[in-house]
Amino acid sequence: MENFNDLKYILDGFLFVFSGVLVMWMAAGFAMLESGLTRSKNNATVLTKNIALFSISCIMYYFVGYNLMYGDGSSFMGSFSTISMESAADASYPAAADFFFQVMFVATAASVISGTIAERMKLWPFLIFVVVLSGVIYPIQGHWTWGGSELGGLIAGFSDFAGSTIVHSVGGWAALAGVLILGARKGKYTKDGKVRPIPGSNLTLATLGTFILWMGWFGFNGGSQLALGSKADIDGIALVVADTNMAAAAGAVMAAILTQLLYKKVDLTMVLNGALAGLVSCTAGPDLGMLVAFIEGIVGGALVVFAVPFFDKLKIDDPVGALSVHLVAGIWGTLAVGIFNPEVTILAQIKGIVVIGAFVFITSFIIWKILDMIVGLRVDEETEITGLDIHETGLECYPEFKKA
Amino acid sequence: MENFNDLKYILDGFLFVFSGVLVMWMAAGFAMLESGLTRSKNNATVLTKNIALFSISCIMYYFVGYNLMYGDGSSFMGSFSTISMESAADASYPAAADFFFQVMFVATAASVISGTIAERMKLWPFLIFVVVLSGVIYPIQGHWTWGGSELGGLIAGFSDFAGSTIVHSVGGWAALAGVLILGARKGKYTKDGKVRPIPGSNLTLATLGTFILWMGWFGFNGGSQLALGSKADIDGIALVVADTNMAAAAGAVMAAILTQLLYKKVDLTMVLNGALAGLVSCTAGPDLGMLVAFIEGIVGGALVVFAVPFFDKLKIDDPVGALSVHLVAGIWGTLAVGIFNPEVTILAQIKGIVVIGAFVFITSFIIWKILDMIVGLRVDEETEITGLDIHETGLECYPEFKKA
Amino acid sequence: MENFNDLKYILDGFLFVFSGVLVMWMAAGFAMLESGLTRSKNNATVLTKNIALFSISCIMYYFVGYNLMYGDGSSFMGSFSTISMESAADASYPAAADFFFQVMFVATAASVISGTIAERMKLWPFLIFVVVLSGVIYPIQGHWTWGGSELGGLIAGFSDFAGSTIVHSVGGWAALAGVLILGARKGKYTKDGKVRPIPGSNLTLATLGTFILWMGWFGFNGGSQLALGSKADIDGIALVVADTNMAAAAGAVMAAILTQLLYKKVDLTMVLNGALAGLVSCTAGPDLGMLVAFIEGIVGGALVVFAVPFFDKLKIDDPVGALSVHLVAGIWGTLAVGIFNPEVTILAQIKGIVVIGAFVFITSFIIWKILDMIVGLRVDEETEITGLDIHETGLECYPEFKKA
Repeated sequence: MENFNDLKYILDGFLFVFSGVLVMWMAAGFAMLESGLTRSKNNATVLTKNIALFSISCIMYYFVGYNLMYGDGSSFMGSFSTISMESAADASYPAAADFFFQVMFVATAASVISGTIAERMKLWPFLIFVVVLSGVIYPIQGHWTWGGSELGGLIAGFSDFAGSTIVHSVGGWAALAGVLILGARKGKYTKDGKVRPIPGSNLTLATLGTFILWMGWFGFNGGSQLALGSKADIDGIALVVADTNMAAAAGAVMAAILTQLLYKKVDLTMVLNGALAGLVSCTAGPDLGMLVAFIEGIVGGALVVFAVPFFDKLKIDDPVGALSVHLVAGIWGTLAVGIFNPEVTILAQIKGIVVIGAFVFITSFIIWKILDMIVGLRVDEETEITGLDIHETGLECYPEFKKA
Repeated sequence: MENFNDLKYILDGFLFVFSGVLVMWMAAGFAMLESGLTRSKNNATVLTKNIALFSISCIMYYFVGYNLMYGDGSSFMGSFSTISMESAADASYPAAADFFFQVMFVATAASVISGTIAERMKLWPFLIFVVVLSGVIYPIQGHWTWGGSELGGLIAGFSDFAGSTIVHSVGGWAALAGVLILGARKGKYTKDGKVRPIPGSNLTLATLGTFILWMGWFGFNGGSQLALGSKADIDGIALVVADTNMAAAAGAVMAAILTQLLYKKVDLTMVLNGALAGLVSCTAGPDLGMLVAFIEGIVGGALVVFAVPFFDKLKIDDPVGALSVHLVAGIWGTLAVGIFNPEVTILAQIKGIVVIGAFVFITSFIIWKILDMIVGLRVDEETEITGLDIHETGLECYPEFKKA
Repeated sequence: MENFNDLKYILDGFLFVFSGVLVMWMAAGFAMLESGLTRSKNNATVLTKNIALFSISCIMYYFVGYNLMYGDGSSFMGSFSTISMESAADASYPAAADFFFQVMFVATAASVISGTIAERMKLWPFLIFVVVLSGVIYPIQGHWTWGGSELGGLIAGFSDFAGSTIVHSVGGWAALAGVLILGARKGKYTKDGKVRPIPGSNLTLATLGTFILWMGWFGFNGGSQLALGSKADIDGIALVVADTNMAAAAGAVMAAILTQLLYKKVDLTMVLNGALAGLVSCTAGPDLGMLVAFIEGIVGGALVVFAVPFFDKLKIDDPVGALSVHLVAGIWGTLAVGIFNPEVTILAQIKGIVVIGAFVFITSFIIWKILDMIVGLRVDEETEITGLDIHETGLECYPEFKKA
């Protein structure tokens, strides 16, 4: 290396590699969380979905999505042929490092969906949806925001540091569209309008998944500083990771206290979702100081405790609470930037939330509907009762252990 | 960036971020280890404790503990108002990065306790103890050592690189105080003085937890170099991580060989605790070379094989062996620095061990006693027999799997 | 730090630390994968093997292997006394950091074997084999390649970036030699020549193990750039990690599609092994661009789908598919460099594969044979039927859960 410019190039590139590794790890977190919060007869299918959706996202984003998101093009979407994995001689950061970091975000958005539609959606229609989401839907709205087009100025001023809206709510809107067509799991809501809880099969793995996501989020938010090569950058990254940790902790504690007050027990699954909601809540503005992070997390943790029964009241069946965590807390986190960051207006945030939400919900709804008409989204009744694993993967997840 | 001073600032800050992420990950390790080594009827409570204690530690250390530890003040403890998360213009490292790294150590100390008091302590009294530990007890003794006050010279010359005493034994002393008040689990010791083994429910997760802790320890010890911006620093970090790995390996192998010789079987739980004891053993002096690390680990691995039955002889019931690993090996590791580091005297080490141990044990004992008198530490007999999970969290950890 | 030379020293050293931590983590991945793919009655033994083999590898490589691999000496092997953990004043990188990175590779090679011989080999003979492998066999062939001796020119031109052959196939050849002597598990092949599937006990943990290995591989391949201190280095690392991710994704998707076509179900265990085969396939040439990585992964994922039944046809019983993943895909990955890298000939690759394969297979076969004659490799029939855990570790892995 010869000068400080080279050095900045190296450090910025290394931040992407370091952070990308951590965000990739979140895929394992989603897999463990979702497997732990669903029934063992469906776990092998949940796991297959998770590893396959991650893989498909990576492939589609390389061949299609990355171009549509970051390639030159119209204000609506980018185009092919302007993107290269090779760094140009005058590049200011390693091209492949940027790709490595960005690709992990697509997979995160897709992972959100997987939890909501678990235990009754067929494997392949879901994976085809992921092809479209990671290849087209996610990248187009990403082009408007991180791609810089502002949709021709329509969402100018919208601020979303690491993706409360751009990643988490996007996954949430796509999941919501899917679940509205798919319907609830058999037996979740009784005819007289009651909600029958369906407990997850393995809370240790759900807890492990939460810790994995918590850890990976340091890369998710910290890496979104996008540079390491200046004092301001490392100050920014340091504050972001400290804030991220605080928001998660605040969300978990808030959910613990609230469930104790409401139900006289500390509900572990709510504590886990509280921590995750705290993380989502501070993702749009993880750079606003630890007190703001604390408030973002507290509100996020509270929201999830009320959102989960709220969706149940609407008979929207979300086995892992992903809508509450990623969509509801994602919206809150995006609004919070408008509240706490003097340079951002609430109006700009609402515009972004609505425009992106409408685009993703509508396009997703159309895709889900087409898939439902052509191949059918839902497994047949017998498959749902006996478990998806035997029919979809031909395997049992825990063949040796006797069911209670 | 403009000059090598800026660069040192960036690299030192990044070391804190990198290492803090790894140490945070240890929280997952403790959760998996403790869940795996306890009975499934109590696992959801163990997990709730672990995620809640981590969250509470982070919040309390931010609002209170960090100030008492590193703020200016008396030689006994620091004070508020001198600490800021914002980096001053003339700061030599990013303030938030230092906080991010330090906060993870408090959580580690609190995690140690959680294992020892598992399977019979109520959730909330434990969490209130964590409030005091992370807000007051840990920071005060930390002020004497890493805070630099030396308690007015009383423990001058005490050397503890990454916290064999300051973190691990502190957790161990607090746990010992608690368990003396709490008593053993029902049925652990029979009336005729025999020890009834209570096997852990899931050794795969216990092994996973051990590997997680091993991995996280590279950040725990490596990050305690506190700087990356010089050749001496990276040489130091490299030696520290190589030593840390060696000590863990030596502890595991020693426990494997010893249990084979003593019991004609390789006891997996002892191998896991042997690795962890090796890690604790080299935490006070992980910078003394690989042969020293090998010896630290061998002795640590041997100690744990004898300490576990020793505590049982004293009827001190420690479900996961945390006292053997963190307190006993923590003391050994601290003494080892006096033996192997010519610049440190054994006397200074003993002074530090005794002063810190006495402070933590006594203050913890008082807090536990007060909690016991006001709310009661122990669950009632029926709860203990049927399992804490139903009563404390309202959930079963593995609801679908039939118990043998 | 005073100049850019110091800085390069720091960055190169930090790359080794960062990557070494990730590769260490792969040990946990192997443990989870193998435990998940074998029966619960043998899981504690599988776990004991995994943590013990890692520990033994680290100790043996320090005291013996590292010297034979990198010490000066003959073209056949290095010698003692030229290696030091202390960095010399004129060193170009921190000596301990290099060791920390390299030692993790030995453990990886040894981990490969553990899966193949699972469920019927005694613990101690296996561990003694690991002593020889990590102390002597692996380092000698490593001396020829990464040690630079080229075996006196015999394998000149052989190219293996991160060890498709040098690590993964080496583990595979040693495993093959072992399994030929050891034989198949009881009941795996019926007398009339049919293959009886023996399902793994926990596919969630197998999936977790796969994700862990995937994550760790970024260090395995990325760290093999061996330097971070130039623009070319970070460009290289970035491309390597992006390629590695692509190859894994391609392998997983290929296995999913193929098993759907062949068996009308997506076989999760094949998807997992497909991802791993993709990773092994791109390990010799992870620096050849994302299209090449995609092809490497696609072929690797396909190979594993056919190799698993192929080994079964030969009655070579490999409980976790390690031969298919590490040996077959390792050979393919090494050949792929000859195909896609214009600077490398296929002939040179074949020579390297054959010479190293022959050396490792023959020496391993001799060691296994000696161990078999002296202490016996295989547990007795009763132990195999009731499970190795009770006999070898005196523990049950899941004592509370009722078996189906």
